[in-house]
Amino acid sequence: MALSRLNTFTTKSSLFRQLPQNAKCLSNLILGEPSGPSVKTPIPGPKSKEMISELNTIQFANTVIYFTDYNKSIGNYIVDVDGNVLLDVYTQISSLPLGYNHPDLLKVLQDPDNQRTFINRPSLGLFPGQGWPQKLTSSLLSVAPKGHSQVTTMACGSCSNENAFKAAFMWYRNKQRGGAPITEEENTSCMMNVAPGSTPFTIMSFKGGFHGRTIGVLSTTHSKAIHKLDIPALDWPIASFPRYKYPLEEFAEENKAEDRKCLAEVEEEFERFNKSGRFVAGVVIEPVQAEGGDNHASPEFFQELQRITKKNGAALIIDEVQTGGGATGKYWCHEHFHLPEPADFVTFSKKMLTGGYYSLPEFRPQQGYRIFNTWMGEPSKVLLLDKVIEVIKRDNLLSIVQASGKKLMDGLMDMSKRYPQHVKNVRGIGTFCAFDSSSAEKRDEIVAKLKEKGIQSGGCGDLSLRIRPALVFQPYHADIFLEKFEKVLKKIKTF
Amino acid sequence: MALSRLNTFTTKSSLFRQLPQNAKCLSNLILGEPSGPSVKTPIPGPKSKEMISELNTIQFANTVIYFTDYNKSIGNYIVDVDGNVLLDVYTQISSLPLGYNHPDLLKVLQDPDNQRTFINRPSLGLFPGQGWPQKLTSSLLSVAPKGHSQVTTMACGSCSNENAFKAAFMWYRNKQRGGAPITEEENTSCMMNVAPGSTPFTIMSFKGGFHGRTIGVLSTTHSKAIHKLDIPALDWPIASFPRYKYPLEEFAEENKAEDRKCLAEVEEEFERFNKSGRFVAGVVIEPVQAEGGDNHASPEFFQELQRITKKNGAALIIDEVQTGGGATGKYWCHEHFHLPEPADFVTFSKKMLTGGYYSLPEFRPQQGYRIFNTWMGEPSKVLLLDKVIEVIKRDNLLSIVQASGKKLMDGLMDMSKRYPQHVKNVRGIGTFCAFDSSSAEKRDEIVAKLKEKGIQSGGCGDLSLRIRPALVFQPYHADIFLEKFEKVLKKIKTF
Repeated sequence: MALSRLNTFTTKSSLFRQLPQNAKCLSNLILGEPSGPSVKTPIPGPKSKEMISELNTIQFANTVIYFTDYNKSIGNYIVDVDGNVLLDVYTQISSLPLGYNHPDLLKVLQDPDNQRTFINRPSLGLFPGQGWPQKLTSSLLSVAPKGHSQVTTMACGSCSNENAFKAAFMWYRNKQRGGAPITEEENTSCMMNVAPGSTPFTIMSFKGGFHGRTIGVLSTTHSKAIHKLDIPALDWPIASFPRYKYPLEEFAEENKAEDRKCLAEVEEEFERFNKSGRFVAGVVIEPVQAEGGDNHASPEFFQELQRITKKNGAALIIDEVQTGGGATGKYWCHEHFHLPEPADFVTFSKKMLTGGYYSLPEFRPQQGYRIFNTWMGEPSKVLLLDKVIEVIKRDNLLSIVQASGKKLMDGLMDMSKRYPQHVKNVRGIGTFCAFDSSSAEKRDEIVAKLKEKGIQSGGCGDLSLRIRPALVFQPYHADIFLEKFEKVLKKIKTF
Repeated sequence: MALSRLNTFTTKSSLFRQLPQNAKCLSNLILGEPSGPSVKTPIPGPKSKEMISELNTIQFANTVIYFTDYNKSIGNYIVDVDGNVLLDVYTQISSLPLGYNHPDLLKVLQDPDNQRTFINRPSLGLFPGQGWPQKLTSSLLSVAPKGHSQVTTMACGSCSNENAFKAAFMWYRNKQRGGAPITEEENTSCMMNVAPGSTPFTIMSFKGGFHGRTIGVLSTTHSKAIHKLDIPALDWPIASFPRYKYPLEEFAEENKAEDRKCLAEVEEEFERFNKSGRFVAGVVIEPVQAEGGDNHASPEFFQELQRITKKNGAALIIDEVQTGGGATGKYWCHEHFHLPEPADFVTFSKKMLTGGYYSLPEFRPQQGYRIFNTWMGEPSKVLLLDKVIEVIKRDNLLSIVQASGKKLMDGLMDMSKRYPQHVKNVRGIGTFCAFDSSSAEKRDEIVAKLKEKGIQSGGCGDLSLRIRPALVFQPYHADIFLEKFEKVLKKIKTF
């Protein structure tokens, strides 16, 4: 598959071709959505400002953008406490599958049979509730990546990755043991954090990657300094992630060379660490580096990475926390890469509402209480996810994502031709789109001016703007976004 | 305060003296509770067994005790799918404040105004909802440990401790900087996990402690080998936690010497690590080591630990994930210790429904996005917690805990005299009680036989049994437990 395919996934889908030409007719996906954004006050408005200062007496609140009226927010529109209505293409850092107050989700809450699920949170590893295996099957397993039959639930993205790492470490050590029993020395030494019970094993990660913020996964996160500064880190291998030149068609050779350079680094890090006994038990990677700047890599890169990882006896951990759940037009972004074999682990959270991971059967723990915690996720999240998946299927939301993604990408490409100083390196799969501005300052200016026009977007990486709408974002929403975006671009000074 | 006070907190409370003598009259706390346990099948019963094997096709399920019918479970009684009704003194690893299906919590779910809170999960660091500061104030801050005005919410216990560690590291480094700006070298080096941006700082922990299972906090966990085996660990300082001889009155001198020995180790570890530049930024400790075997330490030990920690410029992080929320008869167990100053951090989860931590104002981050993640906890948990705290206050549940705790402790002490071979080292505060058996096997046998009699309990440490009822566990529930317990003890063979 050629690199250029990355930009054209959306156009080749047969699903897309089934969509009506006039996408407006789909507008009844969520009843009660406003026809467009409306901004009445500066943002944050006076009420938000007051609430921010109230919150700031209790905790650091300087990151708050505005206070939200979650009763009034609906579908793709977020409504703030000052009455401003914004088209939300950021959706709580890409974590809302169906937008705000989706009627089907409200019905889940209104059903008395379901309400008890929200107040009786079990310790799922000890006392799961009646119907739990069936609920996992109808929800998480019904959309599992091809080849996956095993799923473990967790509370959030960080602990999903932490536990995938742990399962990879155990698996790697078990292979080393070759069937030998765990020794007394291992049991006593691990209690004091030393060898042989505590292993010197490592997880390889990529520059620009983001895998969470607890200390283990933070050691594999390399997105922004402010996320990592002052925190102790594990000295684990780090390779370069491809940084492509755009448009991809024009730089096909350069980008192939970039893939080779990065893959060579992966091989070198494997050799360097394995030789020194600090064995690489796993390689963790996002299908698209989101927080780090929406960096894409080719299917060939991922295919080859899988081959190298397998050759070195390590586990491939694909972190779909941000990319999973449908925004790329498939449930899992890495399905676009046509890997020869299933990934060893696929981790998720955000749009999946529950955290967790899929893993191949060989990664099942051999003893109890090794992959374990008090709650192990939460049935109420899976109950809601079950409905989300039902709605995705019923309303053909993945084909809508593909259609809206095409609209967005075509529009962004057009802008990049007409405003090349502000819109560079347009890239995306489905509605998971981004572009670079000329600087962090210009990017921040665009995000701010979009907000004034009633569009809530978000930055990522050094100078990128990411678009992360919900799955109910339709082509006519893309039109609204593009119209407002062009108005902003017209007003941005070049220097 | 003398060590022996630990065993007598419950008897000295004036609240307790206000309770009616015949505790049975309180039985209407939760309407519909059965009058006692009833066991119809072996546990797990045939239906549970079938479901366990179903779940085992999806994930490792060998830790499951039985499948639960959460529609039928009520108050202090857990009902399994085979119709067995057990008095639950383990309550989902100590995480249910009001037992099962508390009517007031059900009402929260039935209120249409609340239902939207469960389906619109915000990114709380960016877009909190209207009323969020007020909700934090009426719930978490209304029961904050004395001297605490700052609270940060998180999803679970592990990430609460991970983030308290991070905040301690940032604070320590800021003190070192002495107002100097962050350097470019710090910013670039931390991205590659090396100094000076990544610090060599450490957190001191205690043998037998449990602070969670993600890799950072797992390095401070030293409860059971199976929790840590094969996982890389940070080489951080570890001191001994006191191991007392019981009854405390009899071994007052020995136990004081044990305190001194452990505190001397703390001083030595501070010196050893600080001297080598691996500065100890924080000391993390549970008021009672729960998972590690319900190990208690004296108020004097904690007071002196606070003094030593402060002297060494480190933060004292009190982990109240299991001890917090009322089970000791106070909201926070460490309030029993009368520390001269507020703890720097108090972390929580479990019975508090939301994870998070209280911290003194000096630990507020200096920049945005440093203590941050997608969700930062969840408003729906705080909404439920708000009602839990209202019910605790309205129904005087802390005084009930004190009364029930006295009943339990008196009964256990009595058993320890009559069955000294099986019930040793009885200890507890409120209903947070435990005893040691003669061996892990005997302990497991007692837990199993209690289940046959309709009591769900849990083990901890090497040979302890822990009692962790909900706050609605009344003295007459303690009578039921003690009656069944004695029946079990009569049948346990000595060897």
